[in-house]
Amino acid sequence: MAESSVKPVPLLKDELDIVIPTIRNLDFLEMWRPFFQPYHLIIVQDGDPSKTIKVPEGFDYELYNRNDINRILGPKASCISFKDSACRCFGFMVSKKKYIFTIDDDCFVSSPFPLDLLLLLGSVCCLVKYEIPCLVEVAKDPSGKDINALEQHIKNLLSPSTPLFFNTLYDPYREGADFVRGYPFSLREGVPTAISHGLWLNIPDYDAPTQLVKPRERNTRYVDAVMTVPKGALFPMCGMNLAFDRELIGPAMYFGLMGDGQPIGRYDDMWAGWCMKVICDHLGLGVKTGLPYIWHSKASNPFVNLKKEYKGIFWQEEIIPFFQSATLPKECTSVQQCYIELSKQVKASLGKVDDYFIKLADAMLTWIEAWDELNAPSEANSAKPQPNGPAK
Amino acid sequence: MAESSVKPVPLLKDELDIVIPTIRNLDFLEMWRPFFQPYHLIIVQDGDPSKTIKVPEGFDYELYNRNDINRILGPKASCISFKDSACRCFGFMVSKKKYIFTIDDDCFVSSPFPLDLLLLLGSVCCLVKYEIPCLVEVAKDPSGKDINALEQHIKNLLSPSTPLFFNTLYDPYREGADFVRGYPFSLREGVPTAISHGLWLNIPDYDAPTQLVKPRERNTRYVDAVMTVPKGALFPMCGMNLAFDRELIGPAMYFGLMGDGQPIGRYDDMWAGWCMKVICDHLGLGVKTGLPYIWHSKASNPFVNLKKEYKGIFWQEEIIPFFQSATLPKECTSVQQCYIELSKQVKASLGKVDDYFIKLADAMLTWIEAWDELNAPSEANSAKPQPNGPAK
Repeated sequence: MAESSVKPVPLLKDELDIVIPTIRNLDFLEMWRPFFQPYHLIIVQDGDPSKTIKVPEGFDYELYNRNDINRILGPKASCISFKDSACRCFGFMVSKKKYIFTIDDDCFVSSPFPLDLLLLLGSVCCLVKYEIPCLVEVAKDPSGKDINALEQHIKNLLSPSTPLFFNTLYDPYREGADFVRGYPFSLREGVPTAISHGLWLNIPDYDAPTQLVKPRERNTRYVDAVMTVPKGALFPMCGMNLAFDRELIGPAMYFGLMGDGQPIGRYDDMWAGWCMKVICDHLGLGVKTGLPYIWHSKASNPFVNLKKEYKGIFWQEEIIPFFQSATLPKECTSVQQCYIELSKQVKASLGKVDDYFIKLADAMLTWIEAWDELNAPSEANSAKPQPNGPAK
Repeated sequence: MAESSVKPVPLLKDELDIVIPTIRNLDFLEMWRPFFQPYHLIIVQDGDPSKTIKVPEGFDYELYNRNDINRILGPKASCISFKDSACRCFGFMVSKKKYIFTIDDDCFVSSPFPLDLLLLLGSVCCLVKYEIPCLVEVAKDPSGKDINALEQHIKNLLSPSTPLFFNTLYDPYREGADFVRGYPFSLREGVPTAISHGLWLNIPDYDAPTQLVKPRERNTRYVDAVMTVPKGALFPMCGMNLAFDRELIGPAMYFGLMGDGQPIGRYDDMWAGWCMKVICDHLGLGVKTGLPYIWHSKASNPFVNLKKEYKGIFWQEEIIPFFQSATLPKECTSVQQCYIELSKQVKASLGKVDDYFIKLADAMLTWIEAWDELNAPSEANSAKPQPNGPAK
């Protein structure tokens, strides 16, 4: 066969699922078609299950709505959030692949309106419970080329991390970089990378108070770096542009109880990030952040966000010290064991802050039970659920 | 006065000294003239004190050679390295300013030769003990503009650091950036910044083995970021392009015993960095790394470097775990107290690795004694030494 006729095989084509939580038609996929089409999509439909979600032609996908989640998990479905993008973690659980890339969509067209108008519109929509369209688009690098976010995530995940010592020239495994003078040679093998956390150009991922104070701030700085978050350091993990190794860390990627019937929202990815980081540090796994960027033209409503966040904003002042001082016994050698131990510590420590955390700690246990049920080592395939197939 | 006739006052003009260790005429200053001329220079002349160092016209400087160091410190001069750029820390001690910027020069002209030739030349020069010219030049940012490294260092030092929680959009105090969603509000004040560690374009700061393995590697990646090294994480601090707050951390900026009569070299800045970071973490001070870049066209000889480094390379495997687990008692509330305590721990722990560390621990104590002598709180000025003035 002539070499020129051989198409390059997309990286990890058969080992990666793209998980998308949604309440709307997935027109946004058109923009990502050149990058996503070779992969399998797991769509978690949030909200009204009777609504039909349209997926553009040519994508290979499975779709789960709330009825599917209830049918598959039975009473354990209580651990999966409803009316919140935290429901995405159901997709992590039902995937059969080693790697996951998850991206936000709750958004469908690029907005032609100026921000002031959108903010004004936001306050009105807040009252009438209408959500403004927003968009996670393909970003361009400084040379003007579309960024293949997925490819960069895969590179991040397939090269080691360096959580035990900080390298001043950033990721030492990137082309053109290495470990600098003074970096201990015994640490240069690094550790396996569990998480690749990508960033956002344009609208930064700010909390509601910052959105309100700086409505016009845009992130225009393309920082050409990938780096490991050092051991012992916590960071705010955003679920908007995130990839991970399901086999290494999957059971810790629970997005908690948010949205319908819960006192908070917009802390789903944060919660997963804090739990995950404590466990990665304990198990010797790495977490990378930086490239790739996506273009975030979201105009989420700061008033709605404030309502979702406000309890989290003060609870967080107790959550962070809790996670910063959390230690896991060395007997915990699997992610599941670590996660169960962490849920006990959450109940004992944060349960005093609010009853919500007792409920959350229980849901963490339910999540692990459900995970193990669907991911039993020897019968991984037979135990897998039957989703609604694509409407082909 | 018409506004147009008012020249902008250089930042911290009367509060910052530039410290340069050298063995040669300082022709390299010509390149830095637009940025350095408003500041006071402290030149520490290494090697033969009978040699005259030429400083380009128009710079305000004081110069100390070995005779001056011996005269000023008496027997305590033993703590200042000879025939090694580690002697620069004498300049930190005699400065009367709040801030220090230190930069390498051991270098005088840009090399017109290709690297292969330089490397070949290197092996020859190594034998005849001739040092190849090299250069720390002004770097350009991606728009082609000369980088005012000093201005960026000052910005870094004057804005807080965030060692207690990692911000994914890098320095939250830079224009156009902020703390992202999920960053605890109680930590957004940050902590005072003690150190600003700048990087290098072109020749990266590699150890001898990496230099030997990757002779052609150049750092061409301009990463437009400043970030805080998180609490608990150690990093390799390079002394080539470094600024710090002398009042906050000065007494910890001791570059150890290197060069003439010592078994190692090229670990001077590393040693200072590890001691300094443990103390910053203990005292709640911040360390930033990233911008500014300088252009490093150094062709230091990897064979000579290997000879200097080789003991350090395996000692380091014990040094790093030592510093990673070092803790200081809460009674240590000043940098001096912390440093004295650290020297005791060095003697007790690393003294077992090699007698060199016993000598080094003693020198650390001598350094603090000398520092306190020259920097007595109430008589700061009267106790200050009289240097050789500029040859005006």
